[in-house]
Amino acid sequence: MKVQLERLDQDFLFEVANTNGHRVLLDNKSKTTGAVKGISPMELLLMGLAGCSSIDIVAILRKQKIELDDIQVDVEGFRPEGAVPALFQTIEVAVRLEGNCSPEKALRAVKLSFDKYCSVSKTLEPTAQIKYTVELNGAIIPQN
Amino acid sequence: MKVQLERLDQDFLFEVANTNGHRVLLDNKSKTTGAVKGISPMELLLMGLAGCSSIDIVAILRKQKIELDDIQVDVEGFRPEGAVPALFQTIEVAVRLEGNCSPEKALRAVKLSFDKYCSVSKTLEPTAQIKYTVELNGAIIPQN
Repeated sequence: MKVQLERLDQDFLFEVANTNGHRVLLDNKSKTTGAVKGISPMELLLMGLAGCSSIDIVAILRKQKIELDDIQVDVEGFRPEGAVPALFQTIEVAVRLEGNCSPEKALRAVKLSFDKYCSVSKTLEPTAQIKYTVELNGAIIPQN
Repeated sequence: MKVQLERLDQDFLFEVANTNGHRVLLDNKSKTTGAVKGISPMELLLMGLAGCSSIDIVAILRKQKIELDDIQVDVEGFRPEGAVPALFQTIEVAVRLEGNCSPEKALRAVKLSFDKYCSVSKTLEPTAQIKYTVELNGAIIPQN
């Protein structure tokens, strides 16, 4: 798995592409002049976590013949201000699912992803505490 | 720092946005039907590493009044095949710099990023061995 970065200006704007040619603009969010035109590197980690868990959840439920109508995931990362480096200490994930699925199966799919399958989650886990809530058809599923 | 994911189809295509509205398409690279239309979650980690170190290198050299003419970074991640989860075991980074800079200062900037400053590198380090080479104006800089 390989990605390639090029610089687009004489400041902090970069483009990174995967081997399929899919591209992301990256920029320095803390720069003091000019508009921020891209995503920050640490935001990419949160985006990776959102995507990884979503793929897992869809795939796990699909194996049980459950097709979700919708899935939305918010991921918020908390870093110490002013520290260098500033790693995520806590990451809060809000998973919202819509579809004809029992709360037990929905919660189990999310748990399996974060606890067992998701490579991004397992990569971030040594340095960040990852917490999640799961909402199914508008109601939070209690976790015991 | 917050990102939000939405599902775009009834398969594995997702869009994730940061709070500035910058978006990334995510897809499941191992899906067996249909074209892969986006980036994989694990690729985003490699992209984050490329961006984080590039921002550091530009910023570190800028503090010494050195403006690079160009920077390119390749990042390749190696994962065990067929494992779940499949974390990166090794990540190889090839940094190519162009500009009026001494090899010592170029190598020091890269080292400072990976060893000290880069939040993405420090996040990936507990689970992956990160190696890098540094090329300046077409010549590899020896590392002792």
